[in-house]
Amino acid sequence: MKARIHITLKNGVLDPQGKAVGHALASLGFGGVEEVRQGKYIELDLTETDRAKARETVDRMCRTLLANTVIENYEIDLG
Amino acid sequence: MKARIHITLKNGVLDPQGKAVGHALASLGFGGVEEVRQGKYIELDLTETDRAKARETVDRMCRTLLANTVIENYEIDLG
Repeated sequence: MKARIHITLKNGVLDPQGKAVGHALASLGFGGVEEVRQGKYIELDLTETDRAKARETVDRMCRTLLANTVIENYEIDLG
Repeated sequence: MKARIHITLKNGVLDPQGKAVGHALASLGFGGVEEVRQGKYIELDLTETDRAKARETVDRMCRTLLANTVIENYEIDLG
């Protein structure tokens, strides 16, 4: 089973990487960009075939290693 | 309009960051992880309201700045 994880900074947390991308886009002449937020995207190939168990395991992976839950949100898609 | 961009390494391109995450998960006792691939996730807030124009602009942003098309693929979702 494949798990796709999006890890994004929580609202209100400063995103210097996103800001840098925004400035770079502006200096390249791309107007009309109001905000840029950069996050991480992780794809996992799991041997687990049970959806509920897979979600529980990936959730635990996010909380213990992949995301910093103080400043980041995570979202798991199984498919 | 919001644009969501996924930037992932092309198949066959080595992903040391993904490998590191895979090893870390294994050493934390998470079994059953066959492969880990790490990519970037970028959210853009655009003032553009025309979907076709927005897609064209974001595609150009990806090709000129956001993705390294030699080793990376990108995928754009507008919504």
